[in-house]
Amino acid sequence: MSVLVGVIMGSKSDWETMKHACDMLEELGVPYEKKVVSAHRTPDLMFDYAASAAERGLKVIIAGAGGAAHLPGMVAAKTELPVIGVPVKTSTLNGLDSLLSIVQMPGGIPVATVAIGHAGATNAGLLAAQIIGAFDPEVQRKVGKRRERIRQTVIESGVLE
Amino acid sequence: MSVLVGVIMGSKSDWETMKHACDMLEELGVPYEKKVVSAHRTPDLMFDYAASAAERGLKVIIAGAGGAAHLPGMVAAKTELPVIGVPVKTSTLNGLDSLLSIVQMPGGIPVATVAIGHAGATNAGLLAAQIIGAFDPEVQRKVGKRRERIRQTVIESGVLE
Amino acid sequence: MSVLVGVIMGSKSDWETMKHACDMLEELGVPYEKKVVSAHRTPDLMFDYAASAAERGLKVIIAGAGGAAHLPGMVAAKTELPVIGVPVKTSTLNGLDSLLSIVQMPGGIPVATVAIGHAGATNAGLLAAQIIGAFDPEVQRKVGKRRERIRQTVIESGVLE
Amino acid sequence: MSVLVGVIMGSKSDWETMKHACDMLEELGVPYEKKVVSAHRTPDLMFDYAASAAERGLKVIIAGAGGAAHLPGMVAAKTELPVIGVPVKTSTLNGLDSLLSIVQMPGGIPVATVAIGHAGATNAGLLAAQIIGAFDPEVQRKVGKRRERIRQTVIESGVLE
Amino acid sequence: MSVLVGVIMGSKSDWETMKHACDMLEELGVPYEKKVVSAHRTPDLMFDYAASAAERGLKVIIAGAGGAAHLPGMVAAKTELPVIGVPVKTSTLNGLDSLLSIVQMPGGIPVATVAIGHAGATNAGLLAAQIIGAFDPEVQRKVGKRRERIRQTVIESGVLE
Amino acid sequence: MSVLVGVIMGSKSDWETMKHACDMLEELGVPYEKKVVSAHRTPDLMFDYAASAAERGLKVIIAGAGGAAHLPGMVAAKTELPVIGVPVKTSTLNGLDSLLSIVQMPGGIPVATVAIGHAGATNAGLLAAQIIGAFDPEVQRKVGKRRERIRQTVIESGVLE
Amino acid sequence: MSVLVGVIMGSKSDWETMKHACDMLEELGVPYEKKVVSAHRTPDLMFDYAASAAERGLKVIIAGAGGAAHLPGMVAAKTELPVIGVPVKTSTLNGLDSLLSIVQMPGGIPVATVAIGHAGATNAGLLAAQIIGAFDPEVQRKVGKRRERIRQTVIESGVLE
Amino acid sequence: MSVLVGVIMGSKSDWETMKHACDMLEELGVPYEKKVVSAHRTPDLMFDYAASAAERGLKVIIAGAGGAAHLPGMVAAKTELPVIGVPVKTSTLNGLDSLLSIVQMPGGIPVATVAIGHAGATNAGLLAAQIIGAFDPEVQRKVGKRRERIRQTVIESGVLE
Repeated sequence: MSVLVGVIMGSKSDWETMKHACDMLEELGVPYEKKVVSAHRTPDLMFDYAASAAERGLKVIIAGAGGAAHLPGMVAAKTELPVIGVPVKTSTLNGLDSLLSIVQMPGGIPVATVAIGHAGATNAGLLAAQIIGAFDPEVQRKVGKRRERIRQTVIESGVLE
Repeated sequence: MSVLVGVIMGSKSDWETMKHACDMLEELGVPYEKKVVSAHRTPDLMFDYAASAAERGLKVIIAGAGGAAHLPGMVAAKTELPVIGVPVKTSTLNGLDSLLSIVQMPGGIPVATVAIGHAGATNAGLLAAQIIGAFDPEVQRKVGKRRERIRQTVIESGVLE
Repeated sequence: MSVLVGVIMGSKSDWETMKHACDMLEELGVPYEKKVVSAHRTPDLMFDYAASAAERGLKVIIAGAGGAAHLPGMVAAKTELPVIGVPVKTSTLNGLDSLLSIVQMPGGIPVATVAIGHAGATNAGLLAAQIIGAFDPEVQRKVGKRRERIRQTVIESGVLE
Repeated sequence: MSVLVGVIMGSKSDWETMKHACDMLEELGVPYEKKVVSAHRTPDLMFDYAASAAERGLKVIIAGAGGAAHLPGMVAAKTELPVIGVPVKTSTLNGLDSLLSIVQMPGGIPVATVAIGHAGATNAGLLAAQIIGAFDPEVQRKVGKRRERIRQTVIESGVLE
Repeated sequence: MSVLVGVIMGSKSDWETMKHACDMLEELGVPYEKKVVSAHRTPDLMFDYAASAAERGLKVIIAGAGGAAHLPGMVAAKTELPVIGVPVKTSTLNGLDSLLSIVQMPGGIPVATVAIGHAGATNAGLLAAQIIGAFDPEVQRKVGKRRERIRQTVIESGVLE
Repeated sequence: MSVLVGVIMGSKSDWETMKHACDMLEELGVPYEKKVVSAHRTPDLMFDYAASAAERGLKVIIAGAGGAAHLPGMVAAKTELPVIGVPVKTSTLNGLDSLLSIVQMPGGIPVATVAIGHAGATNAGLLAAQIIGAFDPEVQRKVGKRRERIRQTVIESGVLE
Repeated sequence: MSVLVGVIMGSKSDWETMKHACDMLEELGVPYEKKVVSAHRTPDLMFDYAASAAERGLKVIIAGAGGAAHLPGMVAAKTELPVIGVPVKTSTLNGLDSLLSIVQMPGGIPVATVAIGHAGATNAGLLAAQIIGAFDPEVQRKVGKRRERIRQTVIESGVLE
Repeated sequence: MSVLVGVIMGSKSDWETMKHACDMLEELGVPYEKKVVSAHRTPDLMFDYAASAAERGLKVIIAGAGGAAHLPGMVAAKTELPVIGVPVKTSTLNGLDSLLSIVQMPGGIPVATVAIGHAGATNAGLLAAQIIGAFDPEVQRKVGKRRERIRQTVIESGVLE
């Protein structure tokens, strides 16, 4: 199967967070690619990446960035594909700056924003799979099986001490 | 074409915000349904709605709520479909409470969160169309044409006073 | 005496916080049960737990959760018993997200919210005892004796150095 | 039936908010009293009120205050009854100051905090009724019937436009 | 004298704020141009504008935007000229989102951020003049004279009532 | 010279912060006393302490507390002496809760609030000395000499590396 | 009696807030003067005012300012008198910026900060009187009588409806 | 070449942050000087420094400070040169206090504010170079070459794992 999800991030230091998105896509068998693409330091590369994503066959782009996090919104401005934004935790404002920079997009260019940090990256992978799964029963079935497995784990962990 | 998007909201007073999602779906010709479903006041109805959405043919659910906004996350817990959450502005904390209640989901159950208020609702409709458009060239083409139209408007409005 | 208080939490990792609620109930001799019940990962279990709590003889439910903390509010939506919500501290927003997700409930479904983290969990146990104590002089007497003991400790600790 | 709930507030200007607590108690037929008692301007009166509440037969105290809102916590320090705190909205910080001043109580003295403003006051009345209802089937039945009524209203309002 | 300052903004609705920057440049006799250029709706136009600004003789760019305000940072990524960012006040978060989206730039691409709203726009015009004035005594002298005039006004207004 | 400043704090754990107030008073030769007095756990002791402070010869009270920090405001409600409030840093909200609980007093009962944490405690000691110094030239002279000493230190430290 | 309190403010527009400080001083018969002195627009005047305040016989300075409110702290840097800072409410951040700019002073230069806006200004006047009253029984007596009067008003207003 | 940039900071402890500004100026070959100048502890020195900066040939001043950070704004009040403010991270509020104290300047006295902490200091050095570079092709060329170098690094780091 060809690559369906592009996972990009503004800096190599975001990889510690964003690898959780890749782990999830791997677990669910969704083919993906990953790359460092910086809105501020490689703006032209970013635009090329976004503008060619659809014709390269991608269905979803996951973009992670921290601070004045412009990557998800700028990628969204250059593609009609759905873009998922992951606010990376920052050392000063804990990612509240990343969150507001990503989620408060003006009408016309949406970014599908998830939680700050690791949980958000995990969920970005899962959300990409759910989007694809809405049109691919096999992927949806895997998402469903994963949920069932987690559900069992919670129930078993329910007995404390 | 059968209904592809379900637009739900926690209270009738959210309609003023959420109608912007419906307007966008209408504009892009994406068939949708709309309904008041409250996480707190009609929890069983909410679960039924979410659990049956996929088999009823829905591809995306848009859920708007304010304050301790549990509707999007709880619907997401009961369906494998992608769920878009719209934080409705509140009279006390301006929707910051709605935003955090919707976006900060734990790993395992994502909600695709958009901006607080009207712009967010508009973008929820657009994001649903972009998700569907990733698998339906006709819808994607309409999203693209809308963007081009907006682009022209901005360029023409560029000359101030 | 039969179990009067149900202590639930969204994840096993919340136990470090929530055990302080149990310690307090133990100290005051209020019979309780404890369980992991996740709003997002075991939604049906959560509804069953809440819906059957009153007939099982519970008088108060204490629910702890972090981030987009939906457990207390959703449990409150399925029972007429008083529900106490404990906002668990989060690694990103320090529990401000948990607090707002729990306390900002819409009119119609209250959650009795306590402080973020350990102090809040301790107080959740105490508040449950005070609720029961309002109708059970023996429990109220124990709460009073505990207070008196703490008061003495503070007075004795008053001499610094 | 004798008075079971005391509704107090820090200033006459809080009445606009706090009357919603009284309306709810009225609707559910729970006997209550109401009074302006200021932590800062009538501290001795406040202590007398709190210290004598239990022996006067009260089961729950509802206290509303805004800004550096000390009334709920100080009342809680002088009674073993459960105290519900209502953060009144403020003109500068929208009640975030009131909320944190009320909810962030240290271990040992809990305040059952509800949402900021009107919705919180409504829920304070309801929470008081639920506390009493846990030990009085008649009150619990009324709470249940009210819920059912609201549920029907939501379902009927579900059809938009 | 040729145009030295480019004043751009993300949307026509930002003009009410950004005109204060133009008024100041006018008052100080600094030649400027103004234009609507949207990071999200006209990304290519934005890149062209930024990339050609230096060779067109501009010395400073002033960019105003609200919400997830990406315009100043993205323009800064495409020019070596100093870029001044004006956070436009938003209806939901009052411009705190705009401020953090503009000021929290990663190391490598600075944006000179001013206050939220009108005062910030006024100061953006003034800052541009001060930058130019550091190399042009005539402009610096005008800035100095304006200050002296304001100083006198404050001193005269010092007598209250 | 008799004791002029009373330094109190809500809990023994606040001593690590509040000792900086005592250190400053010691350095400036202002006689003081120190004590743990809890608003919530020893409310009557607190009222007695505050109500008798003026007649015992105190001129200023310094009160430190964290979280829902009611000590400074409640002491202020029971004395006509100036009360300085020190917001102690908290593990969850970093002392923002303490700050708002102390500073946002309603009209009628002021608390002279200083910065969160150690710097605030240091300044509370200094502010008490400045208040006394406004009426005691000897104390004012010591404050002035300390400033001069600090000024010299800064100037000497001015050469970096 | 000579002037004891200097009331200054950063701009004429702060007068609407700061007049409440003057009203209180008037009510308590404490002689004061008032003046617009801007930290940013009349820095030298500000330094002169602060540096000469003690020798002119002032005992307390009240300084109000909004936004990046530097007036109280800079005045405090130039006098050994106690300085009370009033955070004026701002149109964008509601005075949270003013509050943090005033209260978060570094160790060495305290500012006695009061609440944001009108209540804070009222309390600034009262705090100045309490400081003077600690050394002047007549002023302290007036503060006490005012409190008693307010106390009576609250008690009488206690009967609602 | 004579000194063009003055780098000042409120305390020696700010050096750990502010050295990043100096490193950048060094890297770009922009002559600078550095000094501890405290707004609160050496106010006269600060005024002298600011007032003489232009005639000493400086083109830009970079000022870093934390908490109630008055240094950048007060320096800006005493010079017509552009002033860049660096909000130093604080142990309590993470630099949000520093940021608001620096950026929210009133109309008339701008401060060019950069990000909180290290990234901000780096960018302050870069922004100073960009300001000078707008009038000095050699400096602008160095800024351009640095960008190109960084761009290459990002592209090479793009291949993850």
